[in-house]
Amino acid sequence: MMMDFKVELNSRLELVENRLHELLEPRMPEIIYEAMGYSVFAGGKRLRPILVMAACSACGGDESEALDFACALEMIHTYSLIHDDLPALDNDDYRRGKLTNHKQFGDGIALLAGDGLLTLAFETMLKAAVERGEQRFTRAAETIARLSGSQGMLVGQVVDVVSEGKQIDSSMLDYIHNNKTGGLIKAALIAGGYIGGADEATLSLLEVIGADMGLAFQIKDDILDVTSTTEVLGKPVFSDEKNHKVTYVSMYGMDKAQSDYELLSKRAVDNIICLGDRASFLAEYAKRLINRIK
Amino acid sequence: MMMDFKVELNSRLELVENRLHELLEPRMPEIIYEAMGYSVFAGGKRLRPILVMAACSACGGDESEALDFACALEMIHTYSLIHDDLPALDNDDYRRGKLTNHKQFGDGIALLAGDGLLTLAFETMLKAAVERGEQRFTRAAETIARLSGSQGMLVGQVVDVVSEGKQIDSSMLDYIHNNKTGGLIKAALIAGGYIGGADEATLSLLEVIGADMGLAFQIKDDILDVTSTTEVLGKPVFSDEKNHKVTYVSMYGMDKAQSDYELLSKRAVDNIICLGDRASFLAEYAKRLINRIK
Repeated sequence: MMMDFKVELNSRLELVENRLHELLEPRMPEIIYEAMGYSVFAGGKRLRPILVMAACSACGGDESEALDFACALEMIHTYSLIHDDLPALDNDDYRRGKLTNHKQFGDGIALLAGDGLLTLAFETMLKAAVERGEQRFTRAAETIARLSGSQGMLVGQVVDVVSEGKQIDSSMLDYIHNNKTGGLIKAALIAGGYIGGADEATLSLLEVIGADMGLAFQIKDDILDVTSTTEVLGKPVFSDEKNHKVTYVSMYGMDKAQSDYELLSKRAVDNIICLGDRASFLAEYAKRLINRIK
Repeated sequence: MMMDFKVELNSRLELVENRLHELLEPRMPEIIYEAMGYSVFAGGKRLRPILVMAACSACGGDESEALDFACALEMIHTYSLIHDDLPALDNDDYRRGKLTNHKQFGDGIALLAGDGLLTLAFETMLKAAVERGEQRFTRAAETIARLSGSQGMLVGQVVDVVSEGKQIDSSMLDYIHNNKTGGLIKAALIAGGYIGGADEATLSLLEVIGADMGLAFQIKDDILDVTSTTEVLGKPVFSDEKNHKVTYVSMYGMDKAQSDYELLSKRAVDNIICLGDRASFLAEYAKRLINRIK
């Protein structure tokens, strides 16, 4: 099982990597493709693309049909990182051990590289939806748009920005986590479900799984920020404390963070198992996310 | 005819205005809807939305089906203005006689308001495409994505930014105009055509019309910048010269700018007339654009 899983994971990672290289192949004007590629190929885990593919096959679909949507979600994730790092927001100099996009290319090109990735994500999905000519692809794109925007990542980010340095209550922290981190994780699973031909009940279950996984992922991030090392994480630890950032750990304490994290992760895996044998890769992937150390 | 035209134009403007207010209705988190609305309702001409609607009926379609796509295009146009004005790019303090978005709301919220408008544009189009369940809506959204991005506005803007302060040749200036200004004008006409059920030949003609109108519109902007007054334009004149910006007028001289402008405008109107009686509003609208004074 363990060997099979790694083979399966690597084969998906390779598909995503190759397709991202095709979609971002340098062309005129080269500087913007260079800047977009710089951040897309900076060593992300490809969590969201893998979830799109795995959810598609968990619902009995053909993963090759989900590949462009998987890559689009990674572009949207990357655009949000580039814009978050800009001086207008977090003003960060490093990400994943490399200079941030604007430190490498200047603020103007970084701004446009983010805009370019967001637009290219929709170009990619809509081209696929037009070529394949079926509504399930349009539905997948609609889900990704909504959960990247007014019902997900963007509004979570806005609330995070305006509450910076302020005392926030637990419902506000929930809102930020559920939208800012949870938005794209839910989007990945539901979009994969649509492409895989899931029925309404399955789509609802995928949304619940996504919400649990999104929050679990965020809690783990907050835990690692205070328990890991800079060497393992590839980014500074104790950064949340330094930035006076309210986290799941600072709000609820380490014990509750740890137990909630385990509860959410277990529930997500149990719900994935309800999807049947076809979901075994997704279940194993979710289990391994639980034990991630970075 | 003149009276009818104004009635027809105003009725479309009212539809667009009302729908934009619905789509941007304040909700949680309020600050981002306030910031997005601030720039969307800052007094634009609604050129692109009117072109979407007019192209749709010129092809025999039902304009009410095009309304959400018309509004989406205005959101994309507005996002590009907000991001262009940021310190990372033009660093402008005023637009249309009002403080720019970042001067009013700060750089971080302005950045997110631009991101929010771009995302909301796709949410709006994709929701409409899912609800209506026909491929012509997905095709319209795909056209708008492509011509806002890698084959239009975004790449035009990138080349404009990187060539700032440099000597550029006429092919480079053409590239910038055809993409940066022309992208969304072509998108408006082609998307309206798709929704109106246009055949391939008509869609190709709409693209040609869009390219001519886009360039004519840009040349007129460049002409007005040196022949109008700040009072009439609502923005400083001679701004291109001050910003050392190469324009159609500085590249080719005023005489050629004026005659090319007239040629392009006439050709666009002649081609619109080829679409038949249903295109009379679009033809009249294009004629009046020719004589615009701001």
